[in-house]
Amino acid sequence: MPLVTDIIKVIYSGKWPESMNGAGNLMDFLDEPLPDVGTYEDFHTIDWLREKSRDTDRHRKITNRSKESIWEFVKSLLDAWSGWVVMLLIGLLSGTLAGVIDLAVDWMTDLKEGVCLSAFWYSHEQCCWTSNETTFADRDKCPQWQKWAELMTGHTESAGAYVLNYFLYVLWALFFSFLAVSLVRVFAPYACGSGIPEIKTILSGFIIRGYLGKWTLLIKTVTLVLAVSSGLSLGKEGPLVHVACCCGNLFCSLFSKYSKNEGKRREVLSAAAAAGVSVAFGAPIGGVLFSLEEVSYYFPLKTLWRSFFAALVAAFTLRSINPFGNNRLVLFYVEYHTPWYMAELVPFILLGVFGGLWGTLFIRGNIAWCRRRKTTQLGKYPVLEVIVVTGITAILAFPNPYTRRSTSELISELFNDCGALESSQLCDYINNPNMSRPEDDIPDRPAGPGVYMALWQLALALIFKIVITIFTFGMKIPSGLFIPSMAVGAIAGRIVGIAVEQMAYHHHDWIIFKNWCRPGADCVTPGLYAMVGAAACLGGVTRMTVSLVVIMFELTGGLEYIVPLMAAAVTSKWVADAFGKEGIYEAHIRLNGYPYLDQDEFTHRTLATDVMRPRRNEPPLSVLTQDSTTVEDVETLIKETDYNGFPVVVSRESERLIGFVQRRDLILAIKNARQKQDGVVSNSVVYFTEDAPQLPASNPQPLKLRRILNLSPFTVTDHTPMETVVDIFRKLGLRQCLVTRSGRLLGIITKKDVLRHMAQMMNQDPESIMFN
Amino acid sequence: MPLVTDIIKVIYSGKWPESMNGAGNLMDFLDEPLPDVGTYEDFHTIDWLREKSRDTDRHRKITNRSKESIWEFVKSLLDAWSGWVVMLLIGLLSGTLAGVIDLAVDWMTDLKEGVCLSAFWYSHEQCCWTSNETTFADRDKCPQWQKWAELMTGHTESAGAYVLNYFLYVLWALFFSFLAVSLVRVFAPYACGSGIPEIKTILSGFIIRGYLGKWTLLIKTVTLVLAVSSGLSLGKEGPLVHVACCCGNLFCSLFSKYSKNEGKRREVLSAAAAAGVSVAFGAPIGGVLFSLEEVSYYFPLKTLWRSFFAALVAAFTLRSINPFGNNRLVLFYVEYHTPWYMAELVPFILLGVFGGLWGTLFIRGNIAWCRRRKTTQLGKYPVLEVIVVTGITAILAFPNPYTRRSTSELISELFNDCGALESSQLCDYINNPNMSRPEDDIPDRPAGPGVYMALWQLALALIFKIVITIFTFGMKIPSGLFIPSMAVGAIAGRIVGIAVEQMAYHHHDWIIFKNWCRPGADCVTPGLYAMVGAAACLGGVTRMTVSLVVIMFELTGGLEYIVPLMAAAVTSKWVADAFGKEGIYEAHIRLNGYPYLDQDEFTHRTLATDVMRPRRNEPPLSVLTQDSTTVEDVETLIKETDYNGFPVVVSRESERLIGFVQRRDLILAIKNARQKQDGVVSNSVVYFTEDAPQLPASNPQPLKLRRILNLSPFTVTDHTPMETVVDIFRKLGLRQCLVTRSGRLLGIITKKDVLRHMAQMMNQDPESIMFN
Repeated sequence: MPLVTDIIKVIYSGKWPESMNGAGNLMDFLDEPLPDVGTYEDFHTIDWLREKSRDTDRHRKITNRSKESIWEFVKSLLDAWSGWVVMLLIGLLSGTLAGVIDLAVDWMTDLKEGVCLSAFWYSHEQCCWTSNETTFADRDKCPQWQKWAELMTGHTESAGAYVLNYFLYVLWALFFSFLAVSLVRVFAPYACGSGIPEIKTILSGFIIRGYLGKWTLLIKTVTLVLAVSSGLSLGKEGPLVHVACCCGNLFCSLFSKYSKNEGKRREVLSAAAAAGVSVAFGAPIGGVLFSLEEVSYYFPLKTLWRSFFAALVAAFTLRSINPFGNNRLVLFYVEYHTPWYMAELVPFILLGVFGGLWGTLFIRGNIAWCRRRKTTQLGKYPVLEVIVVTGITAILAFPNPYTRRSTSELISELFNDCGALESSQLCDYINNPNMSRPEDDIPDRPAGPGVYMALWQLALALIFKIVITIFTFGMKIPSGLFIPSMAVGAIAGRIVGIAVEQMAYHHHDWIIFKNWCRPGADCVTPGLYAMVGAAACLGGVTRMTVSLVVIMFELTGGLEYIVPLMAAAVTSKWVADAFGKEGIYEAHIRLNGYPYLDQDEFTHRTLATDVMRPRRNEPPLSVLTQDSTTVEDVETLIKETDYNGFPVVVSRESERLIGFVQRRDLILAIKNARQKQDGVVSNSVVYFTEDAPQLPASNPQPLKLRRILNLSPFTVTDHTPMETVVDIFRKLGLRQCLVTRSGRLLGIITKKDVLRHMAQMMNQDPESIMFN
Repeated sequence: MPLVTDIIKVIYSGKWPESMNGAGNLMDFLDEPLPDVGTYEDFHTIDWLREKSRDTDRHRKITNRSKESIWEFVKSLLDAWSGWVVMLLIGLLSGTLAGVIDLAVDWMTDLKEGVCLSAFWYSHEQCCWTSNETTFADRDKCPQWQKWAELMTGHTESAGAYVLNYFLYVLWALFFSFLAVSLVRVFAPYACGSGIPEIKTILSGFIIRGYLGKWTLLIKTVTLVLAVSSGLSLGKEGPLVHVACCCGNLFCSLFSKYSKNEGKRREVLSAAAAAGVSVAFGAPIGGVLFSLEEVSYYFPLKTLWRSFFAALVAAFTLRSINPFGNNRLVLFYVEYHTPWYMAELVPFILLGVFGGLWGTLFIRGNIAWCRRRKTTQLGKYPVLEVIVVTGITAILAFPNPYTRRSTSELISELFNDCGALESSQLCDYINNPNMSRPEDDIPDRPAGPGVYMALWQLALALIFKIVITIFTFGMKIPSGLFIPSMAVGAIAGRIVGIAVEQMAYHHHDWIIFKNWCRPGADCVTPGLYAMVGAAACLGGVTRMTVSLVVIMFELTGGLEYIVPLMAAAVTSKWVADAFGKEGIYEAHIRLNGYPYLDQDEFTHRTLATDVMRPRRNEPPLSVLTQDSTTVEDVETLIKETDYNGFPVVVSRESERLIGFVQRRDLILAIKNARQKQDGVVSNSVVYFTEDAPQLPASNPQPLKLRRILNLSPFTVTDHTPMETVVDIFRKLGLRQCLVTRSGRLLGIITKKDVLRHMAQMMNQDPESIMFN
């Protein structure tokens, strides 16, 4: 298992993968606060307990001061409401950005095919809306909208026109993607990818400066439009979460409550992630659940409630912008007219199995490809890679009508039930001539040649999407995988749905159909199969459960179909889990070696003593004593080691623990004392005790540092099982923990030690967690 | 604040309120496992860390053994799948029970008014379904269904018949409620109330033996039907959660994995709670969220996923039983034909304010009444109380058609939009005679006399429901408050809705209506107002947020109306929180003095040293030494104290902590040694060290007890802020925590110490948490 050794290498070397050390800092250094006591360095983990305790102190101060004057009282009220204000602002901005992105993507996607003569900034649909000459049957055709070939040569149907359109389609795609990858490369390297693995890591208490900065926000928004418009097999959902988190981070800086406390900041970011999904799908509840289930680490009920508010405002803002022009929140609104039947659970579960297999295939293939990108020459040419993949995508996509259009349009068509008036090829059924035409309830009909044609094209589109998505996700442009995954599932589902429908029509005397499908009735809804397939595939890739079902049914309004969705999601997760526990985000976290402590249970029989440092053959732990270390000793220690902090003991003999002092605080305190405090010299003694003893005047002035000493360091005994230690680290968000035996200090365990140990254990015995 | 002193009294005295010491144990003592090492006594808190660690050990053993033989491998597979099996069984049983309860309630509610002649076990609706003589307009009237007066005297419309019907209605109600309260009193006292406060407490790690026992399950199911049918102002939703948890507990006993581990058992119970809400409302996702947000304490993602499955199975089972006869999962399915408009947010927010005020009024009133019940003579006559309240309810309810029927029917009618053919009084609008009659889109019409009549009756019903619900909730019968709360909100909402509708009709030139309501259009949907009002009132009482909105929209299928629901829920919670942070369940937990550590933040500046025992003037902590205590010393210590465990130190001089030993384990170990081990006498020395020294033969045989010593007791330093300690207790689920300074043992903090301290702090400074 080379993955594990990767992580260990990364943790030991202290170096972070190439993708993390980009030029992003260059642009975003203005976001960095000045180094100060209580802040963290880049690529370090935060101490949740300390952050929480600092916030309580701050809160207490404000509450006490609020009794002094009316002005202070108003200030305390403002402070109390600042959380809601931040949520409101996040909702407004992320809703607006999502609306703008939707509109821009619509326009630019259509720009690849043609232009609106009446106003070039109209998309195809908008262009034909404003036209009065459009009939209901030919909604897509209106004189104002002209394909490029028509505009340039005047011909519409000739082979030359087709080739010209083809050529321009590919050219526009290449132009968009080149622009996107260049912008990312030059201005904000952190803007690439979906961002969700990094946001998960950040929310678990890791610092990546600039990842949520202003430049990243700007560039990711612009390049997301370009990337989606270029027709690559990617979606905007993951990146929208990243964009919303950038908004969250931006508004945090307005309030010191959030900007100065990394713990509180993460509460805001969790809510922002919910707002991001809320606008991505028009699914506010799904967004909150996604944040809870998939992204967030520390999610108290207060955050749940605020996330809910942010998601509501965001969805509401998006609805006011109304980018889909249908006054609905949801992306793919469907209405089916028939219920589903028990027997249909069999194909639904089969779709679940397909989803699970697709998830496994995608994760393995994508991770293998991304590893290759990291380790070989390939990674050195990100622009070329994007250009090549875009070229291949565009060339293969154009001839097939189902891949030429945007992926969300495709999904929308696949989800839809065929009405009587539907002009799409997928709805080319043979109508019974003496059938009266009720609006709603159309019985099952035999498929016409258009449907069979569509089936072939869909099958080709399925293979194409499966292959190209594996290579697309992870390139240096913003790329989400919700939409491509759903597209794969929707295509497979629609194919299965049509097959079942035709079987039921032609063989309704078969025992499996007999009980529920009378001839002339509307038994099977192929659109529902597409929806179930989409849920299954998305579940297989991301391993979402509850949030998946909620998003799917908010997305489509299909409340009645919650049981089929659940059945497919359950099956898909089971099948995918049988091949590997990790979802795509966890896999990418591991691939990049981020210090993320996941929620899986640790079941090995190791003790704290096996994990703590120093190990048996290592030099003893670097400690300070409470009243016998000199300033020079401390400075030597700081110079010679790179630990984040040092335990303070009574004396080297007794080794009884007093407290823990942070390296950063120590450096600042000594520097400060040397500059400002007279008489502090190299051989001044550093005192961590409550009272420094009266020294003879000949001795140098002592340096009292008790105020920077953490008197309540977290300790466990050496016999504590590692599962408990892991639990403590995870639930309390510790940075380090001291190990004692009968009151004597033995060693220290840091979060990285825990991660390393977990990786080692998994390597030793990968089977043991299978049946957990 | 007398509440706090109540809690303190309860905690100090060690006595639990009367309701907890009922005769329930009498019937359920068979459920109790034999006293054994590692089990807990009744009314004690569990140690989550220990339970988790025990489960990991068990799991490890099974995994290791599974490699030995195929049989062991199969056993390990069965063990791995047992969680899913339990979920399946819970889903099936609770779905079935819910279906049976629904059918029985339907029948018995109608039995108060009349009987079906063709088959007496048919409810009114079922009776008229089977009848062929029913026309569509008079669905409710069919010859087979006869009111009691009609059956006995042959008259239907006379005053005498009315009086006879009235009398029999009251009589049936009294009979049902008397039966219910008697059954509860005699067989299962724990079956009373909603059960949610107790389940919250149990899930947080408290033991109440018999609360989830078989008898409670049986009696609660039967009496729930009786209580709901009696027409009292109560619902079946809370009790259904209790019933589902009883099912969960029942199936836990089938698998030693769950029956022998209190931590694992609670995971199952959390999922069972989700299944309970799922069948109560036909809202599987809402159920999962309710369990997460409102009920559960420890809710890992694995439990989320399993809850989801249990809720799915339960909902599916209920759907197969199809008690509502409409093939739908949901209780109150509605379809509205018009969207809502921005301006309508104003009345929605006003309904939110009303909901918040109602929540406050209800909680204060109900808690004051329940306290009176506990402290005065009133509590001694539970049967009489139920009889009196039922009598008053029935006498006042009969004359008003909106209170005579069952509350869920009322809500259903209030939620419904008026179609063109609706015969209800609420839909008595004046139709425009030259209006064509489209099925769906009926413009706003002026209200007819029936509507004005209905408004008066609804206003009376509102006052009646508000008052009677306060006195009903908390009586000694199963009683949920979801349905009554929703009824209050729905009535208020419908009244507001009709008012807005008529205003919009008569004054559509007013500036507030001008922009969105043209004359002759269908602008206002009064049913939607009822739905929003119901959500607001439910939110005010329970303080649910996300789960509330999800339940409401699963309940009604109103996905489009999520923003109004959210707006009302937000407002209602803000308003209610301004008057007091506690929801009704927390208030009842406090009233009953259960040791529940809630999720609110603790913001006081106290340290561990202020809370730990022994206090300054108390005798020193009772400790054992590792190698100098005799068996007699230990026995004396056990006899003289009632602590749950004792710290073990190196020696009384050094006071360095070695470990912690449980009282129960100590008693068992000594008893066992005295019986089976030769040479262990009263002055044998007890050794907790790794190796007992070689003693001269003259000395009595030593007793080695290291195996019962917990070598990794949880410690904090005396300087640890209490907010951190509270956080540790909450997140890790500790039972006790030892306090040290520089490795010396100073004292101990138990969960009860923490609760007492929190109660004291709240008492001192109730304002300080207001702006948190």
